[in-house]
Amino acid sequence: MTNDLYYANGTEVQLFEWAFQQQMPVMLTGPTGCGKTRFVEHMGQLLGRPVVTISCHDDLTSSDLVGRFLVSGGDVVWNDGPLTRAVKSGALCYLDEVVEARHDSLAILHSLTDHRRTLFLDRADEVVTAPEPFMLVCSYNPAYRSSLKELKPSFRQRFVTIAMNYLPPEREADVLVAEAAVDRAVAQRLVNCATTIRNADEVFHFEPPSTRVLVAAARLIAAGASELEAAHACILAPLSSDGAITEGLREIAAANLLASDGSHVQSP
Amino acid sequence: MTNDLYYANGTEVQLFEWAFQQQMPVMLTGPTGCGKTRFVEHMGQLLGRPVVTISCHDDLTSSDLVGRFLVSGGDVVWNDGPLTRAVKSGALCYLDEVVEARHDSLAILHSLTDHRRTLFLDRADEVVTAPEPFMLVCSYNPAYRSSLKELKPSFRQRFVTIAMNYLPPEREADVLVAEAAVDRAVAQRLVNCATTIRNADEVFHFEPPSTRVLVAAARLIAAGASELEAAHACILAPLSSDGAITEGLREIAAANLLASDGSHVQSP
Amino acid sequence: MTNDLYYANGTEVQLFEWAFQQQMPVMLTGPTGCGKTRFVEHMGQLLGRPVVTISCHDDLTSSDLVGRFLVSGGDVVWNDGPLTRAVKSGALCYLDEVVEARHDSLAILHSLTDHRRTLFLDRADEVVTAPEPFMLVCSYNPAYRSSLKELKPSFRQRFVTIAMNYLPPEREADVLVAEAAVDRAVAQRLVNCATTIRNADEVFHFEPPSTRVLVAAARLIAAGASELEAAHACILAPLSSDGAITEGLREIAAANLLASDGSHVQSP
Amino acid sequence: MTNDLYYANGTEVQLFEWAFQQQMPVMLTGPTGCGKTRFVEHMGQLLGRPVVTISCHDDLTSSDLVGRFLVSGGDVVWNDGPLTRAVKSGALCYLDEVVEARHDSLAILHSLTDHRRTLFLDRADEVVTAPEPFMLVCSYNPAYRSSLKELKPSFRQRFVTIAMNYLPPEREADVLVAEAAVDRAVAQRLVNCATTIRNADEVFHFEPPSTRVLVAAARLIAAGASELEAAHACILAPLSSDGAITEGLREIAAANLLASDGSHVQSP
Amino acid sequence: MTNDLYYANGTEVQLFEWAFQQQMPVMLTGPTGCGKTRFVEHMGQLLGRPVVTISCHDDLTSSDLVGRFLVSGGDVVWNDGPLTRAVKSGALCYLDEVVEARHDSLAILHSLTDHRRTLFLDRADEVVTAPEPFMLVCSYNPAYRSSLKELKPSFRQRFVTIAMNYLPPEREADVLVAEAAVDRAVAQRLVNCATTIRNADEVFHFEPPSTRVLVAAARLIAAGASELEAAHACILAPLSSDGAITEGLREIAAANLLASDGSHVQSP
Amino acid sequence: MTNDLYYANGTEVQLFEWAFQQQMPVMLTGPTGCGKTRFVEHMGQLLGRPVVTISCHDDLTSSDLVGRFLVSGGDVVWNDGPLTRAVKSGALCYLDEVVEARHDSLAILHSLTDHRRTLFLDRADEVVTAPEPFMLVCSYNPAYRSSLKELKPSFRQRFVTIAMNYLPPEREADVLVAEAAVDRAVAQRLVNCATTIRNADEVFHFEPPSTRVLVAAARLIAAGASELEAAHACILAPLSSDGAITEGLREIAAANLLASDGSHVQSP
Repeated sequence: MTNDLYYANGTEVQLFEWAFQQQMPVMLTGPTGCGKTRFVEHMGQLLGRPVVTISCHDDLTSSDLVGRFLVSGGDVVWNDGPLTRAVKSGALCYLDEVVEARHDSLAILHSLTDHRRTLFLDRADEVVTAPEPFMLVCSYNPAYRSSLKELKPSFRQRFVTIAMNYLPPEREADVLVAEAAVDRAVAQRLVNCATTIRNADEVFHFEPPSTRVLVAAARLIAAGASELEAAHACILAPLSSDGAITEGLREIAAANLLASDGSHVQSP
Repeated sequence: MTNDLYYANGTEVQLFEWAFQQQMPVMLTGPTGCGKTRFVEHMGQLLGRPVVTISCHDDLTSSDLVGRFLVSGGDVVWNDGPLTRAVKSGALCYLDEVVEARHDSLAILHSLTDHRRTLFLDRADEVVTAPEPFMLVCSYNPAYRSSLKELKPSFRQRFVTIAMNYLPPEREADVLVAEAAVDRAVAQRLVNCATTIRNADEVFHFEPPSTRVLVAAARLIAAGASELEAAHACILAPLSSDGAITEGLREIAAANLLASDGSHVQSP
Repeated sequence: MTNDLYYANGTEVQLFEWAFQQQMPVMLTGPTGCGKTRFVEHMGQLLGRPVVTISCHDDLTSSDLVGRFLVSGGDVVWNDGPLTRAVKSGALCYLDEVVEARHDSLAILHSLTDHRRTLFLDRADEVVTAPEPFMLVCSYNPAYRSSLKELKPSFRQRFVTIAMNYLPPEREADVLVAEAAVDRAVAQRLVNCATTIRNADEVFHFEPPSTRVLVAAARLIAAGASELEAAHACILAPLSSDGAITEGLREIAAANLLASDGSHVQSP
Repeated sequence: MTNDLYYANGTEVQLFEWAFQQQMPVMLTGPTGCGKTRFVEHMGQLLGRPVVTISCHDDLTSSDLVGRFLVSGGDVVWNDGPLTRAVKSGALCYLDEVVEARHDSLAILHSLTDHRRTLFLDRADEVVTAPEPFMLVCSYNPAYRSSLKELKPSFRQRFVTIAMNYLPPEREADVLVAEAAVDRAVAQRLVNCATTIRNADEVFHFEPPSTRVLVAAARLIAAGASELEAAHACILAPLSSDGAITEGLREIAAANLLASDGSHVQSP
Repeated sequence: MTNDLYYANGTEVQLFEWAFQQQMPVMLTGPTGCGKTRFVEHMGQLLGRPVVTISCHDDLTSSDLVGRFLVSGGDVVWNDGPLTRAVKSGALCYLDEVVEARHDSLAILHSLTDHRRTLFLDRADEVVTAPEPFMLVCSYNPAYRSSLKELKPSFRQRFVTIAMNYLPPEREADVLVAEAAVDRAVAQRLVNCATTIRNADEVFHFEPPSTRVLVAAARLIAAGASELEAAHACILAPLSSDGAITEGLREIAAANLLASDGSHVQSP
Repeated sequence: MTNDLYYANGTEVQLFEWAFQQQMPVMLTGPTGCGKTRFVEHMGQLLGRPVVTISCHDDLTSSDLVGRFLVSGGDVVWNDGPLTRAVKSGALCYLDEVVEARHDSLAILHSLTDHRRTLFLDRADEVVTAPEPFMLVCSYNPAYRSSLKELKPSFRQRFVTIAMNYLPPEREADVLVAEAAVDRAVAQRLVNCATTIRNADEVFHFEPPSTRVLVAAARLIAAGASELEAAHACILAPLSSDGAITEGLREIAAANLLASDGSHVQSP
């Protein structure tokens, strides 16, 4: 356990180190908020490398990644983009939610993810060979079943895939105590509530609550909210697209958490 | 009751203060015209922070939010956008109707809404860490059942959700009296008319009349219009896409309001 | 009756004045060519305010409304758009056929149409508060049944709705006499012909002939055309997408109007 | 009959003159190649006004019509577009195949086609009132039955509609003799062939052959081609999308025209 | 037979010369690789005119055809495009595969293809009248049965259509001998193979092999490949979208061509 | 066998040399990761020509290929793109995954792939004739059965097609030993595992594992991972869009590879 609060869940640290040692790119998969971003930050600390994070989205052009020409002092000067800066400085370059990117923007990554480890800046007529410690890390959430976009098989085959998941309940409660300074009993009740909902996932068909929303609820409790108030605002309302809380969710919360008067409906 | 006429409806002020204290972003949900914009302005006054409002729409680019390069005196100079200005000044930044925004524009908010509280200005090669009082507030109206756009679950999970609703009738009448200077009896008849229509919502399937349109009708009455004239122009006609008023709505209005001759059809 | 030939049809002048007095925006609805544009010009004269007209269309950007940066003398200078000029000069700003506009362009109007009465020029970093006489007027023709676009309910609720319609036959004939200098008998025959077609609208399912096309036909008659020639060219041919005149329309025209030899087929 | 070879077909010259006298815009309808462009050129000569022709297409922006800012000598200068030049010079402005234009580009014409006769150059902040002889003329071919685009009824109602058609056979043969210098007998055989095909139009469902293609065939004959060769290349092959000539068309041609050996298959 | 290896197939040279003499534009139709490009080059030599070739595609703008403004030395200067250069120099301007062009780009050709023979450079405010020898030639392959695009009938009617096709077998073999220097026997076997496949076209439903691919196979044979190897790589594999060769094609090739050991499977 | 580790699989080297000698373009087809890129690099070494690689994607414009104007020192200067540079330097120009390119971008290749061997830089008004050793090589993976894009038949007919495939097992194991320095036994087990999966392809309907992923797994094993760990991360997880490994794949891997304890489930 390190001081930046990353809690390893399995063999992900070992696999990441092997890939780093072999200069191979890594693809992280797992549900929203299970700690992918923190894992990359943790590995950056462990390996002594800076992390350059790029949030992918539909409108990210390859120019946004590699750089562009800008006018400066009446002249046109090339400005490196974050990917180029990451390559040149030998950083860990983290493309968050890579499946959201325009797929044509990803073509620029091909020569970086095979034996060439090279970035071709065609517009600047420059070729950058990645230094040894440079590493490309991508992530995406395969649980978006309805997503219209999919990564191409030939793209996925370029990466060492590391599958991540939620922490086991005890470890997840540790995180809540450490990050929100709530009592362990509160933390465990929140984790129990989340676990019940995650197991009911197949019934409800929504994105299950992440560790992130549990931390948010715990912080609201630390600020003075009751457990039920915090769970409604941070865990239950975001689960539905209209913010309304269904009866089933309400019952799960009431069975696991304390109301504002401290009362507790024990599930029979 | 404050001097800027915001009428709290439940625990929303308390929840907002807890989120502010914990530096967590807030998502306001509720029907059109129930007072979300006024609530944010009210909280800005209460917390002593300026409010920067951005109306979201389909064409809002991330450059519109964070800033862009502009030519000035022959040189290219970076100009902060309203989001960047709000972050730097520690303001409440209010993204109104966030569901209308191009979703790729929202990716820029990710690093602002988790533990990093940081805005990455990749094009300007600048990183802005939000000062303590900065707070991001978003709103959307989940009642648009036909909307093709939906916020991604992982996006909703980044916020403390505060669900808002219409004021109770007595409070709503208070607002009409205070804002349009009509008699309390007039105000109550308008609120009764709106409440009847809102309850009939399931039959009519339209966006129910908001407090905003009641204030508009009250002001037209204050200017000289009869109650029915004002209700036709401000409450009933906007309910249908062609401005025509259906028989059912006409009967509801006639049963609740005074005609220009002061007559009143009492509902049996 | 004013000297600019606007013929009031009901309470529209009174409602417009009340809205102006209360600083509320107005939405005009009604069929094509029933006189919405003239009504706004008439109210501008009556209230002593200039009118700024903007024809809305699919390609109208918010920059076209509020302004943009232009290069001048090597520097970049902000140029106000017609909406900004209208706000600053306290004019009546008339958005004709607002339903045709790109809906994202309309978001810029939100802060102008509620209690704020403010225009946010984010790109110029300027905030313009509307002076007292500024008034926003929009219009659209709800009779386009097949239109794919619809105004959002929350947008319609921001306006006082004034429903307009064709003038009564006598008033419409007055307009023809005044504008085209034809005999009153000619004018009445043209109005009778139009009224017959409008009543047959449910059978033919087309946009009924407007006062505008009657004026056009009257002017062609004044220039020397026979009544039937003028009606064919100005009233009947534009009713069908291919300019061909159906038998039914031909009969209606023949039954109401004089041929070039002055003969008249009286309907039995 | 003028020396520019325009052959009037009915009352179109008279109607056009009345509209010009009354300063009303004109819409010409009729099949491809029936002489709309020549008619406008003819009227320009008759009325002593220059003609500015604009071929409409999907990509024609309102800037292409009214003008745009261009950089010149380091400064930005407004350049009038062809529509603005036509308005200022009091020309006949002819928008050919107006139905092909982006409909948002047509909104700029609204204020030119009603009582205002004014062109608003919003970007240049200039208002141009049309001088008396300025006249707007549009044309489209309503026979494109499969066209996805249609002119809006409210747009069509702004024009005096003049329906044009093919010349009667004798007049059409006059045109062939005058333009291609072929014998009258050759001209009449070509016209007979075209008339037979036009009458068979309902069977074949294609755009019937225009006067233009008859002139083309006549010119090829004048250059040395046989009548059948010329008809195949200029009249028959363009009728099908693959340039192949069907048996039915081949028979019609053979029955009306001379082969290269001067032989003639007389229809029984 | 000229020294640039064009082999006339019928009356196409004569028709082209008549059209050139009459200053009429020509449309070439025919299957891929039947020699349209070479025919235009041949006619350029015969008529003593330069040929300007423009390959049409989806993204070809009218600016690409006529020219655009470019910044040079701080000033904005107009640069003629290839079409404008062709018109001014009286060249043959060849638009290859014109059906692939954006149809709005083709509107610029209207005034060049009728009696006006004029190019309107609206943006440059320049009018170019074509000199006598200028000629516009377009081509397209009507055999693309699945093409979503079609040339408009009114566009096709502007051209003299010259239908081209494959050479007769003896002439095609002449081309192979002349261009690839293979024995006449080899050439004839390749032509026989192609003819068999072309006749089987209705069964296989693919683009039949062109003279171009026969030349390619012959050149590979001249370099050392066996007839079957060359036919597989140049004739058969390109026929299917996945490069795989079906059994039927394999049999046709084996029945017509020699294997690497010189053996020959004679069709029974 | 050369020192850059290319293992020839059939006649591809010979065919490529013949095409190079005849100055004909080559199209490589075959499954992902079967060694197309390495083959081109190998041929570049063998023929003593530099290789210019361009990864094709949806957003690749013809300007990206041929070059564009850039502002430099206040003036506009033409900059050659990678295709133009390859032509001028007589390189092998390799367009990887050409089917992904916007097809309109490919039109620029037409004149390079027929007898003209010429690149038309219309915007720069320059014509570049390819020197003798210049060669165009394209590749695509026809196994993408679901691809919406297909190369046009007339485009495919411009190339000598060379079909590539996986190496035979023994050769593939040679590659793993040489590139990842694993024992031959390990290499053979990985190849056996891959071969089993490739043969099961018809059942699973996914992109089969490439030599590339076998090398990746071998390198992870060399770094310390067990065979099963490495196969899970590099071979199995990338096969499904959600990174989850199906039971069938798990059994194949377990039957072929050693677990972390060195145990081996021998298939019965």
